[in-house]
Amino acid sequence: MKKIGKQTFKIKDDVFIRDVYTIVGAKEGEGPLKDKFDMIVNDDLWGEDSWEKCELKFQKTAVEKLMERNKLEKSNIDLLISGDLLNQITSSSFAARDLQLPYIGVYGACSTMALTMGLGSLIIDGGFAENIICVTSSNFCSAERQYRLPLEMGGQRHMSAQWTVTGSGAVWLSNKGSGPRVKNVTFGKITDLGVKDANNMGAAMAPAAYDSIKQHMMDTGVNYDLITTGDLGTVGKGIVNKMFIEDKMSIQDKYDDCGTIIFDIEKQDVHAGGSGCGCSATVFGSFLFKKLLNNEINKLLFTSTGALHSPTATLQGESIPGIAHCIGIEN
Amino acid sequence: MKKIGKQTFKIKDDVFIRDVYTIVGAKEGEGPLKDKFDMIVNDDLWGEDSWEKCELKFQKTAVEKLMERNKLEKSNIDLLISGDLLNQITSSSFAARDLQLPYIGVYGACSTMALTMGLGSLIIDGGFAENIICVTSSNFCSAERQYRLPLEMGGQRHMSAQWTVTGSGAVWLSNKGSGPRVKNVTFGKITDLGVKDANNMGAAMAPAAYDSIKQHMMDTGVNYDLITTGDLGTVGKGIVNKMFIEDKMSIQDKYDDCGTIIFDIEKQDVHAGGSGCGCSATVFGSFLFKKLLNNEINKLLFTSTGALHSPTATLQGESIPGIAHCIGIEN
Repeated sequence: MKKIGKQTFKIKDDVFIRDVYTIVGAKEGEGPLKDKFDMIVNDDLWGEDSWEKCELKFQKTAVEKLMERNKLEKSNIDLLISGDLLNQITSSSFAARDLQLPYIGVYGACSTMALTMGLGSLIIDGGFAENIICVTSSNFCSAERQYRLPLEMGGQRHMSAQWTVTGSGAVWLSNKGSGPRVKNVTFGKITDLGVKDANNMGAAMAPAAYDSIKQHMMDTGVNYDLITTGDLGTVGKGIVNKMFIEDKMSIQDKYDDCGTIIFDIEKQDVHAGGSGCGCSATVFGSFLFKKLLNNEINKLLFTSTGALHSPTATLQGESIPGIAHCIGIEN
Repeated sequence: MKKIGKQTFKIKDDVFIRDVYTIVGAKEGEGPLKDKFDMIVNDDLWGEDSWEKCELKFQKTAVEKLMERNKLEKSNIDLLISGDLLNQITSSSFAARDLQLPYIGVYGACSTMALTMGLGSLIIDGGFAENIICVTSSNFCSAERQYRLPLEMGGQRHMSAQWTVTGSGAVWLSNKGSGPRVKNVTFGKITDLGVKDANNMGAAMAPAAYDSIKQHMMDTGVNYDLITTGDLGTVGKGIVNKMFIEDKMSIQDKYDDCGTIIFDIEKQDVHAGGSGCGCSATVFGSFLFKKLLNNEINKLLFTSTGALHSPTATLQGESIPGIAHCIGIEN
């Protein structure tokens, strides 16, 4: 068995992260990572007639550009694994329709990037595939109107609310190559401490992040140079730090959150920071992956965190379950 | 590589289907398979205060009963892979919360049962897990109000419309055992011939079923005793037969559709037949799996078919993409 500890899968042969292509919207393109993205789209509809169709174009283009840059043909790709925030993951399904690749759709809310990469790594290491593309996307406008309120209402946002990243990141995983590779994968359990506030997703996800990261570290014993969560924002990041300190396992000096990296929290009026599947996807591709390539870090624990928030369930009095999946990446 | 042909993954070591637990609602419990289900629930809310909560109870109970019957402890189960039709796959997420198992959520609409079984088989054969539970569910009432119209409206249903099965099926996959085992898995590509009618899902899914089944048969060359699709109903089943006949590959004599098996189409007023994730899941568990156990058939091509229908996308003028995943099972 390639299982180590209680919950972690060891990637025995190397699964290489060959390349990542990132596309973001205007606001993300004005943030601290502006020089690191592959493409910035300033028009919030990108010539489409709805935000949903625009999001689908982000995801499809990310995959096409990734394939183009690496001279990959459709026949080279064994599987496309993708997901997004929209009901029926339409961005993923419609992108998969246009891309015409064998397709596995997943739903993990904002945990999707790590979920797809984890699945892809297991399938490649299992000897089934040579090349897999993992992709996810989110869009501020399509997410706000589906999960919260119509943008046209111009409602005031809570200070604990986060700003859904408009962006897509597409990852090429391969059984051949060199450089950063996936070594260990931990799929999380649902953690739900009863948060019911759709404007405080960070608090809903933080306990899941703590649980999965702790389990991954106990299972693997790897001493990571950097540990990141997907989109906890300032509120959730604070909670994770506090939970580890209380547990006498301080990770503060090497822990950061993609939702606080992608925006300038002070200047960009994003309140608690970035969120959405596109958050950890684009921060990974533009920033973390490049840190690995440049040997600035050699061991990264990449964690995507998801608040499995359902407006219907919330109206029925349910709380918001959280989940976090961890991908241990090493040079 | 364990890939054969263009699109099929060969399960090298055996992945055994150890047991399947099925729960259905009252209408399904009055149909031709009434004596074959493990549990029939006659109350359409099962003591819960919403149909969504009732559906979650179906899924959670199916897994609990499956574990109970097989004396499985949580510590024996490496992964739970599940999905359903509801937005944010809430039945799956909330069931996973209560079950406290490491969780992979997928979205494949009605193709979910085969999607979860395919993923589970790859992960076990890849050497990562010993035991995986795959589960899915659907509920007529929760699906109608999410995808179509409020039930309270009492609208007349189209003759091509299908009846979403209220039910859940939970499958235990293991690397040990005897009996029926997964041998080949084909994940489908999206096929979309432009059907935009949410009351004719069978027609939307049929081309995908044809495409995946044909690809699977070309890749594997296996001569199956029985080929089933998930929930095409009478309309979609007719289209699949026609497509194969036009292709000079008649499968008519050994092909059937779970949506036409689960209900008595003439007497039960279900129009074109059953649909929903729960359709192929409960027909597999109650009927097809038992045919394999009894050696009535020895080679089954189990295909779940999904119409990735989104009310939002339909309102924006989009058509309904179809997908089908195939699981080749042999004794």
